[in-house]
Amino acid sequence: MKRIGNTFALLAIIVAGHTTAQAEDPLPSWNDGAAKKSITEFVAKVTKEASSDFVPIAERIATFDNDGTLWCEQPMYFQLVFALDRVKALAPQHPEWKTSEPFASLLKGDVKGALAGGEPAIAKIVIVTHAGMTTTEFEQIVADWIATAKHPKFKRPYTECIYQPMVELLAYLRANGFKTFIVSGGGIEFMRPWTEKVYGVPPEQVVGSSIKTKYEMRDGKPVLMRLPEINFVDDKTGKPVGINSHIGRRPIAAFGNSDGDQQMLEWTQAGSGVRLMMLVHHDDSVREFAYGAESKIGAFSDALMVEAKKDGWTVISMKDDWKTIFAFASQAAP
Amino acid sequence: MKRIGNTFALLAIIVAGHTTAQAEDPLPSWNDGAAKKSITEFVAKVTKEASSDFVPIAERIATFDNDGTLWCEQPMYFQLVFALDRVKALAPQHPEWKTSEPFASLLKGDVKGALAGGEPAIAKIVIVTHAGMTTTEFEQIVADWIATAKHPKFKRPYTECIYQPMVELLAYLRANGFKTFIVSGGGIEFMRPWTEKVYGVPPEQVVGSSIKTKYEMRDGKPVLMRLPEINFVDDKTGKPVGINSHIGRRPIAAFGNSDGDQQMLEWTQAGSGVRLMMLVHHDDSVREFAYGAESKIGAFSDALMVEAKKDGWTVISMKDDWKTIFAFASQAAP
Repeated sequence: MKRIGNTFALLAIIVAGHTTAQAEDPLPSWNDGAAKKSITEFVAKVTKEASSDFVPIAERIATFDNDGTLWCEQPMYFQLVFALDRVKALAPQHPEWKTSEPFASLLKGDVKGALAGGEPAIAKIVIVTHAGMTTTEFEQIVADWIATAKHPKFKRPYTECIYQPMVELLAYLRANGFKTFIVSGGGIEFMRPWTEKVYGVPPEQVVGSSIKTKYEMRDGKPVLMRLPEINFVDDKTGKPVGINSHIGRRPIAAFGNSDGDQQMLEWTQAGSGVRLMMLVHHDDSVREFAYGAESKIGAFSDALMVEAKKDGWTVISMKDDWKTIFAFASQAAP
Repeated sequence: MKRIGNTFALLAIIVAGHTTAQAEDPLPSWNDGAAKKSITEFVAKVTKEASSDFVPIAERIATFDNDGTLWCEQPMYFQLVFALDRVKALAPQHPEWKTSEPFASLLKGDVKGALAGGEPAIAKIVIVTHAGMTTTEFEQIVADWIATAKHPKFKRPYTECIYQPMVELLAYLRANGFKTFIVSGGGIEFMRPWTEKVYGVPPEQVVGSSIKTKYEMRDGKPVLMRLPEINFVDDKTGKPVGINSHIGRRPIAAFGNSDGDQQMLEWTQAGSGVRLMMLVHHDDSVREFAYGAESKIGAFSDALMVEAKKDGWTVISMKDDWKTIFAFASQAAP
């Protein structure tokens, strides 16, 4: 009889464990409200086999912007901070930078002056910091930087400046059979060294902007050299192009936060069946940053807000919808 | 005691089932020999947790060429047959083709004459048959063609002219935690409509050549228009570039059959740890086709054979290593 008792005990534990898992809130950092409800209702619909809204697992594709959607993008894009830090690190090998812009201003600590040169200035910075090395070397440079650099406001590694509610959302979707992809205007090879560890998104599910690479032999070993030439810009109308190129299926859910995500959400919505489109709105100046239509980084224009309302996209208020923003700051909203 | 009996019976069934699964040959269409052994030994090594050769599941990436590696490529690339068929289908809308090459020859049934114009002639054919429609429209065109067209020698749909030993290999690798990718010189959007059903490889794991696409609104609906402009050629030195762009990890196993796969195998081998590189050699004129160094399609040059021997790549003899080539022809080798 002891064996029977054990079997029953085991069964009881399994059943109890199952019940607990069911009852546990998979999105504990989200306040109860329309945003959270739109997520859980969408997932319930597409995973219910008998329903006409059911979507087979292979087609459960969800795409996420990164800057401003999964991690912060203020006071400037983290990849730009990386580039500026690289200029400083490389300066000793480039004495000529002392007298040539945008490097001269940058090395004097005048970031605004350096960036005053606009896109050509930024292009110069990107080329000297992102090209001219192998893909393996660049991966190591990114890994070293991301392991040590800290956010100026939060005094934490950038990989901790990620939104806990979105990390929960990624996990919740994956637990429901979704494949989660990042589709970002950021550099694809800037993200891949850390997205798997930080978001659970493997390199092959990261789509981003890129420069061209070239296969060649160096000391008898094959390498991919990073060339000073833009290959693809994964922003605005580029996002559906990148999705089509890398994924080859239309997402059924898409998450963004700015004008750069508009076309990704349109493309997602234009498929048949039930869809989920959401935009993170940065309206919490206390716990994160508040910025919108006028921001030079991550602008959420009035036109985007109009389109969101017209098309039934859900706007997430960071202030109202998120109980916790960062895992390191578990305080409730003020 | 009945319950105990049931529990034991259940256990016995589970154990027996497990033993049966272990004993079953996962590669029944392969003859016992060096090629088959190199596969099973490689898989045993990278999946053995205690071993220094162990590779975590996330890093078990295997890449497969398509034309000549997973399906036939003779008497001409199937995608070229598709293009020629499309020219015929579109001819009524293009009366001007009657007097302009390469279309005039083609429509008279003179394929050789049409292709005598070389790359420019082929480019003209590709542009009129692969561009100028939306991605959704093109997908449907491919799906319709592949459902009806038949191979001239085997009198079977092209999706049945696939190598049964390689289909088993794909499944065997996946059963051992691998992600299997196609990395082909063929068109990425020509393959995606059918690779999941035929090979078990989903669209997001297909890498191939591509033309540019453009996001635009048509009748208020977003579409991706296929433009008459090459975006990427996924062949030779392009294969490592395509792998890096789409997968972002180096494969630990790669499978090809021609000079176009050389760099993919080099790139795979250049990583650390145990690796598997294999080349299918078409030496079976009775059951398939025999061609090699001199072939205009799928050339396996003498230089490639030299490199294969030098670098320890396994050359698969279709004649000797494959018990069955096609599922529809289960006869043994003559």
